[in-house]
Amino acid sequence: MNKKGLAILMRTRMKPNSPVNPTKFPISLATTGYYGLSSEDRCKLLMVLGKDYDLNRTHVHDLMKQYLGLQLPGDKGEIGDEDDSSLSTFYRTEKNLRHALQPTYEVLFDRLNTHPGGLKFLSVLRADILSTIREHNTPSLRALDSYLKEKLITWLSPAALELHRITWNDPASLLEKIVAYEAVHPISSLLDLKRRLGVGRRCFGYLHPAIPGEPLIFIEVALLKDVAQTIQEVLWDDPPILECDATCALFYSISSSQPGLTGINLGKFLIKRVIELVKQDMPQICTFATLSPIPGFMRWLISKLALQSKLAEADTLERSCSSKETAGSAFREDVLTTEEESQVLDKLGVSTSRKNGIEVILELLKSPNHEWSKSDEVLSVLKPILLRLCARYLLQEKKRGKALDAVANFHLQNGAMVESLNWMADRSEKGLSQSSGIMVNYIYRLDNIEGNAQSYFSSGRVSAASNLWRLVEQIQLAPR
Amino acid sequence: MNKKGLAILMRTRMKPNSPVNPTKFPISLATTGYYGLSSEDRCKLLMVLGKDYDLNRTHVHDLMKQYLGLQLPGDKGEIGDEDDSSLSTFYRTEKNLRHALQPTYEVLFDRLNTHPGGLKFLSVLRADILSTIREHNTPSLRALDSYLKEKLITWLSPAALELHRITWNDPASLLEKIVAYEAVHPISSLLDLKRRLGVGRRCFGYLHPAIPGEPLIFIEVALLKDVAQTIQEVLWDDPPILECDATCALFYSISSSQPGLTGINLGKFLIKRVIELVKQDMPQICTFATLSPIPGFMRWLISKLALQSKLAEADTLERSCSSKETAGSAFREDVLTTEEESQVLDKLGVSTSRKNGIEVILELLKSPNHEWSKSDEVLSVLKPILLRLCARYLLQEKKRGKALDAVANFHLQNGAMVESLNWMADRSEKGLSQSSGIMVNYIYRLDNIEGNAQSYFSSGRVSAASNLWRLVEQIQLAPR
Repeated sequence: MNKKGLAILMRTRMKPNSPVNPTKFPISLATTGYYGLSSEDRCKLLMVLGKDYDLNRTHVHDLMKQYLGLQLPGDKGEIGDEDDSSLSTFYRTEKNLRHALQPTYEVLFDRLNTHPGGLKFLSVLRADILSTIREHNTPSLRALDSYLKEKLITWLSPAALELHRITWNDPASLLEKIVAYEAVHPISSLLDLKRRLGVGRRCFGYLHPAIPGEPLIFIEVALLKDVAQTIQEVLWDDPPILECDATCALFYSISSSQPGLTGINLGKFLIKRVIELVKQDMPQICTFATLSPIPGFMRWLISKLALQSKLAEADTLERSCSSKETAGSAFREDVLTTEEESQVLDKLGVSTSRKNGIEVILELLKSPNHEWSKSDEVLSVLKPILLRLCARYLLQEKKRGKALDAVANFHLQNGAMVESLNWMADRSEKGLSQSSGIMVNYIYRLDNIEGNAQSYFSSGRVSAASNLWRLVEQIQLAPR
Repeated sequence: MNKKGLAILMRTRMKPNSPVNPTKFPISLATTGYYGLSSEDRCKLLMVLGKDYDLNRTHVHDLMKQYLGLQLPGDKGEIGDEDDSSLSTFYRTEKNLRHALQPTYEVLFDRLNTHPGGLKFLSVLRADILSTIREHNTPSLRALDSYLKEKLITWLSPAALELHRITWNDPASLLEKIVAYEAVHPISSLLDLKRRLGVGRRCFGYLHPAIPGEPLIFIEVALLKDVAQTIQEVLWDDPPILECDATCALFYSISSSQPGLTGINLGKFLIKRVIELVKQDMPQICTFATLSPIPGFMRWLISKLALQSKLAEADTLERSCSSKETAGSAFREDVLTTEEESQVLDKLGVSTSRKNGIEVILELLKSPNHEWSKSDEVLSVLKPILLRLCARYLLQEKKRGKALDAVANFHLQNGAMVESLNWMADRSEKGLSQSSGIMVNYIYRLDNIEGNAQSYFSSGRVSAASNLWRLVEQIQLAPR
């Protein structure tokens, strides 16, 4: 099975899934090989690849013992006094170790990469590895994934990527990819697509020579007078202003076309390059901003509220039985301020049987068809509360030192700052479900991009407008 | 000095040396940094980089001891019985070791490669390292060079290279590169260049997105009725036949534009791709051949003859003093056959005072202005001798298992075979000096390319036409 499996992989003829440029794919490719395997067989093959084609550990052990037996070169002296032969041995052994620590599947990846269609195939392979891991999360598969990811990062270095402005003059085979992979604001029709590429808008993609006609990632830009606060200001049919009057380039969508490139941040370089290009073409543009979704806000908020509600209930119950501190207390926190608590109970509590603010909000947010968003009174009470909690979510909620929200993490690590939150900026079903309709503007300030990215990377510090920081600091929370 | 030196490198603003495509180089680049350093300072900086920015060996040692202390995973069982936590530790430590064994300058290379102009800069850097090594051949510089070479190989994988047919419609800035870097048959004028790109000829180059407008390597092709045997048949002014009558694509020149890519074989993939492309465009072409120089033949032959002449002299002298075997004998060999020896002495010996064939030939070949090539009598005697020795040189003379001749090694490792030798095929000063005017046809047979390359790689076996093998085998050498 093993050798045969590897042979199948080596024989993969890498079926191109679109008409190909003959200078890139000069031979007609058969459709057999890996692509002909069922997903179950692919999974088996990948598990064998990860497990049986990694390192020759005996060889690694031998080399290590040999290396540890060598005399470490002493304190470095002046240039010229290197002891040639012993140093040469050192460098040679280190090089041998580097090679011995490369898994056997490295050879497969390298060889595939030199084949026409190979890079695309490796991206498919990684997507398959990721989906196999979802079912069989073994250390060897994780190591396989991690290694292939590192290789892909090397091959997809920004130096190898071409920035391409996508226009209506591009081949239909490329444009259909834009329609298929647009992940933020789906493109409904050909006319819609034409508008996205027309006057007042720009679309840029990163192309790799080995994957022609298929942008790996693309970004859509609207040229505006000011930073847009709602999605309606961006998805117009006719341009609201002349391009020459625009002072803001608004990134309103960024999408990746390759599931196999998950976790490889190509967007960072794309955004920087697009900013430089737009600035060169239209020097009057001085603001580069996004209007972004907050995909994780409601999920976080509802589970946070539900937990606190549960803990409060348990607390009350236990407190009635004993006078001791209760078990759940360590996780209890005050989510609402005193003022918010009373506002909610006074104005919204009457219609429910709930006895505290958290439960009232929970019930409202979970109401079917987002009923809460249709009442002006509910909206006016919830607006300041949800905006404050959303600021807290974006600025303070972390996982392993990074922003919990994936989109926030993306822009923050690219060097953006959180500029402002926009109430009812996206009233679509998706917008209400994900973030109670709130959207956020991130801003890229050319002078601060590197600094912001660096401080976010090293300390997790989120750059944000001072009014947003004020929303989350120095607030008086309601006592339990 | 060290930190400052590194800072200079990091600040390299990578001056582009040609007008650049604004989508690739959107910002104006300063001319300071590394490019502003004198060659002496560059040399110092590179030595510091190689010596002081390699590995943290203490860290490597610690990790190795930790690794050697781990229990090796036992015999591999069935899928599913992995011991998760101990295996995870294994894979993690291996990954950490891989990273620890990467020199510090890896970071610099990676970072430079993400900058616009960075790849070109790294190629310049490697050229500087190579020239520094010529003066200061230290182990750390060799390790630096070897590491950067490996990185460049990864970044310049064929997947990242675009095959471009170079035509008269290309920008002048690209065409001037062709004129500047053509290494085999210099281009004399604009008209000459136009002819190289015109009817009956093709020119293809490999371009990398990060080094726009500058083919890293390019190849020139002539479309002919038969395999050309002299350079005059190739460098015509007017096409000798209609393109549709051509059955042979003759590669008559291949040149690299980047001294920093020395030792990185981009030509191998280029030739394969060009063959596939030409075959697709013109199915009637069934022969893919080269007409190639033999740059090392005369150098090898003259030193071989001179050595044998010296050894023979010493031999005679010693033999007259004692009856023992002489010291030099081990290196003595018979270069000429009995018949050749007598031919040379009979027909050419009279005009010289020399007493054996080798000395006569040596004197002739060293004659000023290649006088020997102007006499029909001399030519007729030397022709079979030089052709036979040239076949021996190409088919049998090796260095570390590879053909001694650099051009032969290039084509043989790409999978070509030596097809025929052509007498007086290049009568230019360069042709006579390098190879006594002999040129060689290598042939790429589509069915044998992989097989030839493989057997040359694994056993050093040179594929050649049978009549050439007959020239070097089963010959009767003149007795001493």
